[in-house]
Amino acid sequence: MHRVEVLRWGHRPRDYRLTTHVALTARALGASGLILADVEDKGVERSIKKVVAQWGGPFSFKMGIPWRKTVEAWRAEGGIVVHLTAYGENINGDLMRQIKLRKRDVMVIVGSKKVPRAFYSEAVSDFNVAVGNQPHSECSSLAVFLDRHFNGKEVTWGFKNAKVSLIPQPRGKKLVRLGSM
Amino acid sequence: MHRVEVLRWGHRPRDYRLTTHVALTARALGASGLILADVEDKGVERSIKKVVAQWGGPFSFKMGIPWRKTVEAWRAEGGIVVHLTAYGENINGDLMRQIKLRKRDVMVIVGSKKVPRAFYSEAVSDFNVAVGNQPHSECSSLAVFLDRHFNGKEVTWGFKNAKVSLIPQPRGKKLVRLGSM
Repeated sequence: MHRVEVLRWGHRPRDYRLTTHVALTARALGASGLILADVEDKGVERSIKKVVAQWGGPFSFKMGIPWRKTVEAWRAEGGIVVHLTAYGENINGDLMRQIKLRKRDVMVIVGSKKVPRAFYSEAVSDFNVAVGNQPHSECSSLAVFLDRHFNGKEVTWGFKNAKVSLIPQPRGKKLVRLGSM
Repeated sequence: MHRVEVLRWGHRPRDYRLTTHVALTARALGASGLILADVEDKGVERSIKKVVAQWGGPFSFKMGIPWRKTVEAWRAEGGIVVHLTAYGENINGDLMRQIKLRKRDVMVIVGSKKVPRAFYSEAVSDFNVAVGNQPHSECSSLAVFLDRHFNGKEVTWGFKNAKVSLIPQPRGKKLVRLGSM
């Protein structure tokens, strides 16, 4: 199975909660890690580490590395880059099939309103994918992309070294604490 | 086609951007409207109205109505209620099929961490659905639920009375202003 990493671009301090939601989405829906490009945010880092310590991993987190360097290194290692943008080709076209056919690790770039023009270019992105050509949330675009990329299977995948786990219930809440093994 | 409305519970002033993202998600992925239960937030209302005026509708927005009254009225009219929660039954089980089989309007409740215990009960929810039993974003859970509920078709649906529209592009950005008709 080829891995997917998410690169979050354009994070500002006021985005603390949104970026945390992007990270939760990435982890819950099968991505291997999140890269917070260009900036650092200790609060986001703390939140993600806490979730991984409690609910399991692996899920990597890096921050502060320049986006261009990250993308270049990724492509140099044979990975492909998918830029999620409302301006891109609609996800219901042929793109998902093409992405899967490439059989490569995938970096998914989620930005904010104004991303660098370069993100749309061949030097950066292999595919510009629109989860609908409407104004959208980066969390939701990422969620739909991951769900389709992993054919919906990712929502049952397990995590390692979790301290707690939820037992699915038709009614009510059931959380179990897992003993050390 | 049966309509889907989203009920957002537990909004606080600091949730302004997250709730706006929930609304964008609802609109972009085929829901007919958003109800902000129990509280009012003029900022959220303004954002949503601006998006609808610019990008088209219909997409309804109501706020300040008590959740219990809203749910009771919905059920009295024959609609069913789906509560999205990480504690629920995994979405990859039989639930999506069961929901579609009911052929009813669907109210989707998205909450925050601590929702009233009653949300899990038969008096409120017909189904407690977990988009993975992991900590998650309400935007993303909603996105995956809607995408699966509408069989992925919703991302190509059009909107009426839009002033602007994006033309899907493999590279770059293309926005057109639509004349009055």
